[in-house]
Amino acid sequence: MALQGKKLINDPNDVVTEFIEGLVETYPGLQYLDGFPQIKVVLRADVVRGAYDKVAVISGGGSGHEPTHAGFVGPGMLTAAVSGDVFTSPPVDSILAAIRAVTGPMGCLLIVKNYTGDRLNFGLAAEQAKSEGYKMEMVIVGDDCALPPPRGIAGRRGLAGTILVHKVAGAAADAGLSLAEVAAEAKHASEVVGTMGVALSVCTLPGQVTSDRLGPKQMELGLGIHGEPGVAVVELQPIDVVVEHVLKQILSQETQYLPITRGSNVVLLINGLGATPIMELMIAARKAVPELQLEYGIAVDRVYTGTLMTSLDMAGFSITIMRSDENILQRLDAPTKAPAWPVGSEGNRPPAKIPVPVPPSPSGKDDEILTEPQELSKQGCILEAAIEAGAKEIINIKDNLNEWDSKVGDGDCGTTMYRGATTILEDMKKRYPMNDAAGTINEIGSTVRRVMGGTSGILYDILCKAAYASLKQNTSIGANEWADALEASVAAVSKYGGASAGYRTMLDALIPACTVLKQSLKAGDDPVTAFIASSEAASAGAESTKQMQAKAGRSSYIAPDLVASVPDPGAVAAAAWYRAAAHAVKSKLHASDS
Amino acid sequence: MALQGKKLINDPNDVVTEFIEGLVETYPGLQYLDGFPQIKVVLRADVVRGAYDKVAVISGGGSGHEPTHAGFVGPGMLTAAVSGDVFTSPPVDSILAAIRAVTGPMGCLLIVKNYTGDRLNFGLAAEQAKSEGYKMEMVIVGDDCALPPPRGIAGRRGLAGTILVHKVAGAAADAGLSLAEVAAEAKHASEVVGTMGVALSVCTLPGQVTSDRLGPKQMELGLGIHGEPGVAVVELQPIDVVVEHVLKQILSQETQYLPITRGSNVVLLINGLGATPIMELMIAARKAVPELQLEYGIAVDRVYTGTLMTSLDMAGFSITIMRSDENILQRLDAPTKAPAWPVGSEGNRPPAKIPVPVPPSPSGKDDEILTEPQELSKQGCILEAAIEAGAKEIINIKDNLNEWDSKVGDGDCGTTMYRGATTILEDMKKRYPMNDAAGTINEIGSTVRRVMGGTSGILYDILCKAAYASLKQNTSIGANEWADALEASVAAVSKYGGASAGYRTMLDALIPACTVLKQSLKAGDDPVTAFIASSEAASAGAESTKQMQAKAGRSSYIAPDLVASVPDPGAVAAAAWYRAAAHAVKSKLHASDS
Repeated sequence: MALQGKKLINDPNDVVTEFIEGLVETYPGLQYLDGFPQIKVVLRADVVRGAYDKVAVISGGGSGHEPTHAGFVGPGMLTAAVSGDVFTSPPVDSILAAIRAVTGPMGCLLIVKNYTGDRLNFGLAAEQAKSEGYKMEMVIVGDDCALPPPRGIAGRRGLAGTILVHKVAGAAADAGLSLAEVAAEAKHASEVVGTMGVALSVCTLPGQVTSDRLGPKQMELGLGIHGEPGVAVVELQPIDVVVEHVLKQILSQETQYLPITRGSNVVLLINGLGATPIMELMIAARKAVPELQLEYGIAVDRVYTGTLMTSLDMAGFSITIMRSDENILQRLDAPTKAPAWPVGSEGNRPPAKIPVPVPPSPSGKDDEILTEPQELSKQGCILEAAIEAGAKEIINIKDNLNEWDSKVGDGDCGTTMYRGATTILEDMKKRYPMNDAAGTINEIGSTVRRVMGGTSGILYDILCKAAYASLKQNTSIGANEWADALEASVAAVSKYGGASAGYRTMLDALIPACTVLKQSLKAGDDPVTAFIASSEAASAGAESTKQMQAKAGRSSYIAPDLVASVPDPGAVAAAAWYRAAAHAVKSKLHASDS
Repeated sequence: MALQGKKLINDPNDVVTEFIEGLVETYPGLQYLDGFPQIKVVLRADVVRGAYDKVAVISGGGSGHEPTHAGFVGPGMLTAAVSGDVFTSPPVDSILAAIRAVTGPMGCLLIVKNYTGDRLNFGLAAEQAKSEGYKMEMVIVGDDCALPPPRGIAGRRGLAGTILVHKVAGAAADAGLSLAEVAAEAKHASEVVGTMGVALSVCTLPGQVTSDRLGPKQMELGLGIHGEPGVAVVELQPIDVVVEHVLKQILSQETQYLPITRGSNVVLLINGLGATPIMELMIAARKAVPELQLEYGIAVDRVYTGTLMTSLDMAGFSITIMRSDENILQRLDAPTKAPAWPVGSEGNRPPAKIPVPVPPSPSGKDDEILTEPQELSKQGCILEAAIEAGAKEIINIKDNLNEWDSKVGDGDCGTTMYRGATTILEDMKKRYPMNDAAGTINEIGSTVRRVMGGTSGILYDILCKAAYASLKQNTSIGANEWADALEASVAAVSKYGGASAGYRTMLDALIPACTVLKQSLKAGDDPVTAFIASSEAASAGAESTKQMQAKAGRSSYIAPDLVASVPDPGAVAAAAWYRAAAHAVKSKLHASDS
């Protein structure tokens, strides 16, 4: 647990003032009062002292709960926030400074979490402000539902539910309501909200050692936000079980903390305690909503999921439920510029999921088998001959490829390519639409990705898909169209694979092949001549990889002298099928000529 | 480090789908495709398939980086996000489903972090989508600045800078630009952004054991977002030193990763890696901004501080710098409803701090000393007699109070009250404005808070401040005004202190005193009679606390039978000074009558 004690800070005594300095660097809408270190007050930059024409809403308390409270300062929420030291109530003078800085003729509402220090310091500040002529009200929030009803004065702790009270009050003030009305809305909100927390770890105060009261497989239930122990330490449970338990406590008919019954509407807040990934908070939200709806018959109007009121770096979360009505929803949905208020939760819910779209053109051809042998066109015959020759050549050189690959890679290049080649030969008979060159290339891509897998399978599929997209733009396909397709293929493999010429990959065969093919056709050579020349360039290119240092794939981890003198097997394979195909086309055309 | 392995989840295999379910519960603007577990696609709920009239912007990759990518789906940012399993690239079919679901006639831009798996899967999906007739572009982001320029294919990793590229592209698309234009803006943005991370802890994959490669006082520099080791492990440093080092690396003239020089403008992103408190992120922002401005001569246009691209539960942060210009600022400032995009950073900066407001009325009287003896009015004389009598009575019963308190509390009640009483007597001569009853009561409050301290000091100050605020509303002060002031005092102490009648506090003396005083005056009794009756009620009330169970303060932790038979010393003290004051007033008035 030593790790937990590590913090990215400077002097532990400066964490609060340095936090505030960073906060105002981040948010131009916020300022602070120049009274460090005693006075730590963040306030709206757009409120001019004495001139504010709405009810000022101020909250605050000990630090260590960031983004609470300063992150909730902004139009539509808090007018100012007063920070104490970590887990320490701010002093009266600091609270008074905040009141004086933002309160105008409409007065000021203080929202205070129910801790004795906060009540007294904010209370005294309120009384002193009154004596200075300010109109003041104070609402105390105690939303903790973990403990049985207290018999004493301390009462229920203020937890994350306080944030919802801030929002209700801030929106009411922003709507221009009077101090009495804003205070009444805040008080009402505080009476219909309940919270309970769970934690996997305790928090670490800056500069201090972390307590080890929680074991490696334990969690704590019903804890507060100041490192104080919870109600119980139990074995770690799946989060669904934890959520069920917490909801049961909050809605307990025994404590009757909340006026929420079957048929009620509520809003839900899943709050991270500081070090909990958003993934885990969302998983809790996923469980809580249907649990409330199906088990308790409670409609969930809004869900807020985020890290809003923390206990420094504690791992865990709290669940807050607030009974909602039209007015509360209006207040919660009202826009605010407070930077930490969660956005995107407002509004009604459309269906959560929609069907996966069906591809625009028929797909899933894998299961289709041609029922009758095709009558091949002349083009189809040539394509068949080329594919057959290319595939057979790969089958022939399988062992060579494996041997070279065993020196520079993992030794399976031949086997992988062999698997692709044999399956192409099978699939070709069964279902390739041989009279449709584009369609056939597309199918070859699907075949190789299915049976070759890995990087080479996906790269060959990319090669085929790019060729397919290029070919299918044309009504008739000749040598020039094949050249364009090869160019598109090379570009796609280079772009997505990240290699280019000289990287010791299949591109070192295909790039020169493409270049020569284009040049030769442009020079007016007949197609067969051009393809044969192009295939010679591919072979030469593959041979040249012997001199190249690997920059991609497994070969890049091998010492250069081991790689030298062995060609890249991927490049050799590409040159081999390409050359075999070119010669097959030549034979076929000459045969049909004769 | 066992704690780090704990997670609030259910089955580790379900974390991504359950995250998505929680996400759409939280955000009504988001939906997902009904293809779990293979297809994990979150998309805008307001985009109708095939009808979207802007360029669709899609990103995605392995999960474990929440809120990236799904949290950035929304108008003005991503149109859809494709999630793989944790740290695993999503499969091609999943990416294709996203493309088909949201792409309209304007086409689709894929933004991909530079990892081989992502490049290939997104690349193949792009090629296949093209072959289905979709207009497609892809931009790859590799913003890592921790490693020297790579000689191979892998290139620089995609890190948190990708989020800024998302925003630029999303805003450009939202502005109605063509696919080529949106892709060009995204590509430009990807070329002017750099990132480097530091971590205090490694991350834990759901269901797996945490690596312990980092020691208790170590941190790691230049790490990625998949738990892969960083460039170096070093001793933990103060955060200011860490920030300096990271900025130096990002802006290194050796690697020249970024086209940023003295005089450039930039935006800054401080990104938490999952388990880093916002407090620490803000402290980093606080250092980075002046460091860039003063050390590098670089103007910082915007600061984004938050937990945006994580590595599960890693503790640490990354810093991202993007060169900004008018167009980029416009894109970053453009509104978006993507829930995880940080709000409140847009716009220019006012002064960060403003002066602490001076109180409206002269304060700081503590240092003022009356230079001449006052000529006391009749009221002033009576007030002086009352205060003197009350204070002296407290001095007289100091030992009794301590004795009772030693049985039910910490034994210092008498000493504390004595300290207040003696100082009141001193201050009264020096500076209380005795002819101004309200002002004098106010000063008594300041005296007791200063010298008594603790809860009792602040409660008595609250009592005095409330009385002051009540008294000062009146031009002349008689018995009824004192009664109103007492009522206001009792209400304030009850409200802020949290006690009421029967809680075994000073209120058990003051509440009956107030009730009897009001009744008596209302019945037409003369003031002296009323005050004497009231003070008898206070004494009886204090005596009655013997039968009360403590509900507040230290006594509440003591077993009931120990408390019984001892009165609450706070209540006795309150009754004592009140009774002495009442009798002093009586004597004074009778003396002046005779």
